Amino acid sequence: MRSGDPPALLVDLYELSMAQGYFDEGLFGRATFELSIRSLPPERNYLVAAGLDDALAWLEGMRSKADDLDYLRTLERFTDGFLQYLGSLRFDGEAHAIPEGDIVFAGEPLLRVTGPLPAAQLAETYLINQVHFQTMAASKAARVVQSARGRPVIDFGLRRAHGTDAGLKASRSQYLAGAVATSNVLAGRTFGIPVAGTMAHSYVSAHTTELEAFRAFTRSYPDTVLLIDTYDPREGARNVVRLARELGDDFAVAGVRIDSADLAPNVEAVRELLDDGELRAVQIFVSGGLDEHAIERLLDAGIRCDGFGVGTKMGTSADAPSLDAIYKLVEYEGRGTAKMSDGMSTIPGPKQVFRRSQQGLYESDVLGRADEELEGQRLLVPVMREGRRLAGDFADLEAARERCRAALGQLPERLYELKPARPAYEVIISPGLRAEAGRFRRNHCR
Amino acid sequence: MRSGDPPALLVDLYELSMAQGYFDEGLFGRATFELSIRSLPPERNYLVAAGLDDALAWLEGMRSKADDLDYLRTLERFTDGFLQYLGSLRFDGEAHAIPEGDIVFAGEPLLRVTGPLPAAQLAETYLINQVHFQTMAASKAARVVQSARGRPVIDFGLRRAHGTDAGLKASRSQYLAGAVATSNVLAGRTFGIPVAGTMAHSYVSAHTTELEAFRAFTRSYPDTVLLIDTYDPREGARNVVRLARELGDDFAVAGVRIDSADLAPNVEAVRELLDDGELRAVQIFVSGGLDEHAIERLLDAGIRCDGFGVGTKMGTSADAPSLDAIYKLVEYEGRGTAKMSDGMSTIPGPKQVFRRSQQGLYESDVLGRADEELEGQRLLVPVMREGRRLAGDFADLEAARERCRAALGQLPERLYELKPARPAYEVIISPGLRAEAGRFRRNHCR
Repeated sequence: MRSGDPPALLVDLYELSMAQGYFDEGLFGRATFELSIRSLPPERNYLVAAGLDDALAWLEGMRSKADDLDYLRTLERFTDGFLQYLGSLRFDGEAHAIPEGDIVFAGEPLLRVTGPLPAAQLAETYLINQVHFQTMAASKAARVVQSARGRPVIDFGLRRAHGTDAGLKASRSQYLAGAVATSNVLAGRTFGIPVAGTMAHSYVSAHTTELEAFRAFTRSYPDTVLLIDTYDPREGARNVVRLARELGDDFAVAGVRIDSADLAPNVEAVRELLDDGELRAVQIFVSGGLDEHAIERLLDAGIRCDGFGVGTKMGTSADAPSLDAIYKLVEYEGRGTAKMSDGMSTIPGPKQVFRRSQQGLYESDVLGRADEELEGQRLLVPVMREGRRLAGDFADLEAARERCRAALGQLPERLYELKPARPAYEVIISPGLRAEAGRFRRNHCR
Repeated sequence: MRSGDPPALLVDLYELSMAQGYFDEGLFGRATFELSIRSLPPERNYLVAAGLDDALAWLEGMRSKADDLDYLRTLERFTDGFLQYLGSLRFDGEAHAIPEGDIVFAGEPLLRVTGPLPAAQLAETYLINQVHFQTMAASKAARVVQSARGRPVIDFGLRRAHGTDAGLKASRSQYLAGAVATSNVLAGRTFGIPVAGTMAHSYVSAHTTELEAFRAFTRSYPDTVLLIDTYDPREGARNVVRLARELGDDFAVAGVRIDSADLAPNVEAVRELLDDGELRAVQIFVSGGLDEHAIERLLDAGIRCDGFGVGTKMGTSADAPSLDAIYKLVEYEGRGTAKMSDGMSTIPGPKQVFRRSQQGLYESDVLGRADEELEGQRLLVPVMREGRRLAGDFADLEAARERCRAALGQLPERLYELKPARPAYEVIISPGLRAEAGRFRRNHCR
């Protein structure tokens, strides 16, 4: 879908109204915005950063074309002078970010954008839209992958994703977080992700009998995975055994898939039928309404299955279909800025995250001022300068996947589990940042 | 975003594998698939049909281009003969659908597609992706709009939508279901939806004081809505009163917006401050984490506000971020087909929905065979023939919005409420359809 420039009008109207205001007032000064997740959903002990590649593409490519401006003119809200300015506006600032695949926590800036106020403001909607969704999807997928205890997880989510872009980007985010393949062919093509898939019930239905369908499909795909529960999974397994007898040495079926309710007893029965039919090498894959808890329950119950197809609940992050993502102005022309109202305050000033590890495990993060010198690994790295993306693998999918794998290996055990970690991971506000917040509050709260 | 053809590769791999299988076997016969929602989420008494416009666009425009075929060739899963066939494949069949904006219930086909088996099969992923998401979004929005009791609901959901397509299509679906405007400028341009929006906290932060920000913004937009809770909503209201005194007859501010936690006490205090400042005409809009239940609580508590900005929870349908959407082969070459396995059976054969009303209110639906002659309004209408969209307003946004408004007015009271309806709306299986299902079951269950 990276066909041409990202759509300049994919903004909330108020970004443009504010930009008109800044234009009228001559507020073209240097502004810094930070994108962060204010708090974690109950069932997230950590988040996996994702979406940076699209964020940078927007910052590099944002431009309003003549027909965009024509539409805006019809709204009668913008001056000709401003629309002319908008037509020539480019983002020529800089950005820092936590690389894709790294682990992040609440309150930590995933992305820090610095540039002329109007351009940095206009980026808000799209940057949140992409970083929010992809981080949400990657974070959910990491849990699903971890629940599978090393068995492959395949993304089946496209059909019930929220539209086409969600389907495409969720596939990327899920692969980033450890899924091994996707059913989504466009994601395969766009991102080089391995694609996988077999047959639907409709294929079986289109034939007069299930055995006839199996015969036909294995003529086209000898080493396929057969869907065996169109009518009854046990009878389906018997048909696979019948097929094996018919084909003899030509039988090469790799596995069967069961996609129904009540997986545990069906899988057990099917495993026995296959084993009795001398088909011990035929693997069993399961799908159908799975999430990390369902997979954990199946594995805890000793289910003998070899992999999972996971769709809707992973792709939509069903238990937490949004994160509390914000993009806040933290500095304008060298002056720290923040929102102060009840319970939703932000901390002024550009920030850095310093991660401290002990014996190879993450121990705590310190949220400090960007110009502070503190112990620990600095998570935000420069990713863009003068409006151009810097060289580096911070938004490369394969690098991000490896980064995620390595980072998950450095999570303390309690965070890696599905249940809420007690205590949660510690994110400490540095004394320097705390002092800055105090100064700001004294100036702005009467 | 209707720029060029829909992406042919936005399919699950198995659609293509099955199509290869059908090609190998010469299964090019006439197949009918039906798209329906198997069951409703706990908090949905009805659904609002949406997504048909995109579904028809895909059926009309689906074609694999040379570079799509080049990618598929690299997978080494498809024969040259099949890829050549795929490159020339068009959908030249017919479709029936329930028009956008109509009310539908579980098990009722929203869309029935009839055509050569491979083409009708390939459409599965995209048709579900679009009809599922848009129906979900419209159905959620109808609840939010109804909770607002006639006050305007404005869609603020773009930033936390699941990607760009979700943002765009949710805006359309929500407008279809009664939202009055959207913050999403691209949706405004693409669909002609009214756009709305004012300012963010960052605008206020970029100025040295809130009052200075209000002065500046009203110079650009005299009749705007001012966001008054960057620091403290009460002080914000006082600043609006100060501004009114400064501007005298030039003061034209239409309203204020409060976007914080604890809306009820803040709104009450702000209303009083505005009234005391002789600003009774200044309206109050609220936003921030709202859904239909939050709005109902605020209005039940007598909150004096004039409109609602609703974002994340409406746009993601947070309590039910997916529906149980399926696309099943119901007939192949005149033979009824179905899936039979445990608890997830489908009913064979093409269907029609017959809606019966009494005294202007919907009373019950009968799900019958498409060729049955039963009482009631036939909900599925012809929408495509020989691969071309028929004339009609079944997928026109303004017509759909009016259709939805009218249909909601014909819902029995218990369905129109937020809480689960007791009893649920009745969908009766016709005797003719029941007999067909029985025959099929006897043939396929041993």
